[in-house]
Amino acid sequence: MKLLITGINGFVARHFLDFVSKQNQEFEILGIGRSINSFNNNHFQNLNINYKSIDLLNKDDVSEMISKFRPDFLLHLASVSSVGYSWKHPQESFVNNTNIFLNLIDRIRIENIKCRILSIGSSEEYGIVHKNDLPIIEECKLNPVSPYAVARVSQEMISQIYTKGYNMDIVMTRSFNHFGPGQNEVFVISSFAKQLVEISLKKKQNRKVIVGDIDIIRDFVDVRDVVKAYYTLLTKGRKGEIYNISSGIGISLSEILYKMCEILQIEINIDINKELIRPSDNPVIIGNSDKMKNELNWIPEISIEKSLTDMLEWWKTNL
Amino acid sequence: MKLLITGINGFVARHFLDFVSKQNQEFEILGIGRSINSFNNNHFQNLNINYKSIDLLNKDDVSEMISKFRPDFLLHLASVSSVGYSWKHPQESFVNNTNIFLNLIDRIRIENIKCRILSIGSSEEYGIVHKNDLPIIEECKLNPVSPYAVARVSQEMISQIYTKGYNMDIVMTRSFNHFGPGQNEVFVISSFAKQLVEISLKKKQNRKVIVGDIDIIRDFVDVRDVVKAYYTLLTKGRKGEIYNISSGIGISLSEILYKMCEILQIEINIDINKELIRPSDNPVIIGNSDKMKNELNWIPEISIEKSLTDMLEWWKTNL
Repeated sequence: MKLLITGINGFVARHFLDFVSKQNQEFEILGIGRSINSFNNNHFQNLNINYKSIDLLNKDDVSEMISKFRPDFLLHLASVSSVGYSWKHPQESFVNNTNIFLNLIDRIRIENIKCRILSIGSSEEYGIVHKNDLPIIEECKLNPVSPYAVARVSQEMISQIYTKGYNMDIVMTRSFNHFGPGQNEVFVISSFAKQLVEISLKKKQNRKVIVGDIDIIRDFVDVRDVVKAYYTLLTKGRKGEIYNISSGIGISLSEILYKMCEILQIEINIDINKELIRPSDNPVIIGNSDKMKNELNWIPEISIEKSLTDMLEWWKTNL
Repeated sequence: MKLLITGINGFVARHFLDFVSKQNQEFEILGIGRSINSFNNNHFQNLNINYKSIDLLNKDDVSEMISKFRPDFLLHLASVSSVGYSWKHPQESFVNNTNIFLNLIDRIRIENIKCRILSIGSSEEYGIVHKNDLPIIEECKLNPVSPYAVARVSQEMISQIYTKGYNMDIVMTRSFNHFGPGQNEVFVISSFAKQLVEISLKKKQNRKVIVGDIDIIRDFVDVRDVVKAYYTLLTKGRKGEIYNISSGIGISLSEILYKMCEILQIEINIDINKELIRPSDNPVIIGNSDKMKNELNWIPEISIEKSLTDMLEWWKTNL
């Protein structure tokens, strides 16, 4: 079976490959990244994987690649997925989410390739949710309040049109915040973890941790649980369906900070940087993933303490 | 006041310029079209209007034009607005609606230009609507069921983000089907009108009129009423608001065919072409435009009989 993975150099892809390498299913994998020769497949020597550098905004290059490889599965992880970044670069965020996806699936449509596609969406699509609607189920009205969220809703609407109108085989997720070892420090918990490790290793003169709004409550899922969900959806999800991927547990960023300080046994000073606070944001996001559980038997298995410990360990060896 | 109009060669733009030429307000107009030298401004000699050929997908060209002209008003009419075409060319339809709009407004954001923007949306955004929700009000849930509709919803979501997140001055419409003299025959009523005029002038051997699904019920507004609404919204609409532009009257395509046959006093044979029937479509769309009426005193004034008569007359002189 041929598996195409976009965003192969990213955080989620690395964990997905880890997961796939432990499965019995044999895949011929083509990984797509933006930068030339940046893929390191030393870690995945038991996988049959090729790497190709393509700008997914280049429609001609995408078309050629799809026509040649003809995937049975497409895991589309490529994304500019930071909400904060999307406020600074709204257009770049939009095209590098919505348009790259459209370039891929439209070629699959034109070539009439039988391909199971996983379209990754985000809990950000729900936007500001009334507390009575928590934890959020898939039927909840979408109310995107950031450029990133708008791009994800657009992608999802496109997926539905291609499924219903062209009978394509697309499954969609609304993935809640994920985190785990190896995550880029532009994402909040990884940024905290890096700063805290620096403090604990006395690489910082002061004990200042720069933060944005730490009162917001989010539903964090360990990336290793997320990739298990993606694999399950690729192989067993129902066509045309949308699935929340969430832990069901809401936790504030301040509590996460506190937990990490406990693990490292350090004290810190919090420094709020207003630049990191977004024009409009959701105070509380908690997801309900009963659909994943009931239909596909997926539940998140890694505790938040283990996730945070692993993230801190990762930063200790990767500072 | 500087007014930028995209899609200047289009059907709606021509009628808008007709309307503006009769107003007391002086505008310096820059009209943007795709083709070189295709703009005929003989009809608008009392308007101060320049024409520029730009592909609005070319971000650099758009940026340069915006930075140079610095509009006070933007009427964004450029669009690939056929639902049928969007099913055949979903990607082209998407980028030539959503991305061209994004190219324009993102440059206005970056340059911090104080500009009132009219973002044109469509009744197609509502998708399949339950009969209890007819006539449709602006609060009705969106359920886009065509690539074109998805592009319009995306554009509207982007408008809302730019209004709320960046404090830009955007007003949005959901325009119901419009028609009137000069409309391209890719649109259904104009296609009927052309075929009927051909029959009445005996330019066709048979009396066959090729149609798609003529049972669907739509809310048709004369383009001359539409452009009056656009002018009203540009000058007086409330920032960040969405306005239906509709007649409030539902009429089936078969009834329109019948009315035109009556006007021409001809008999026809109907030939259903399955190619013209869309993968998924809305059986009934009727809009409620009380918001336009109550807030802005706009009501449609041209009867359907006058619209159809004028369209048939137009085809008689433009076959």
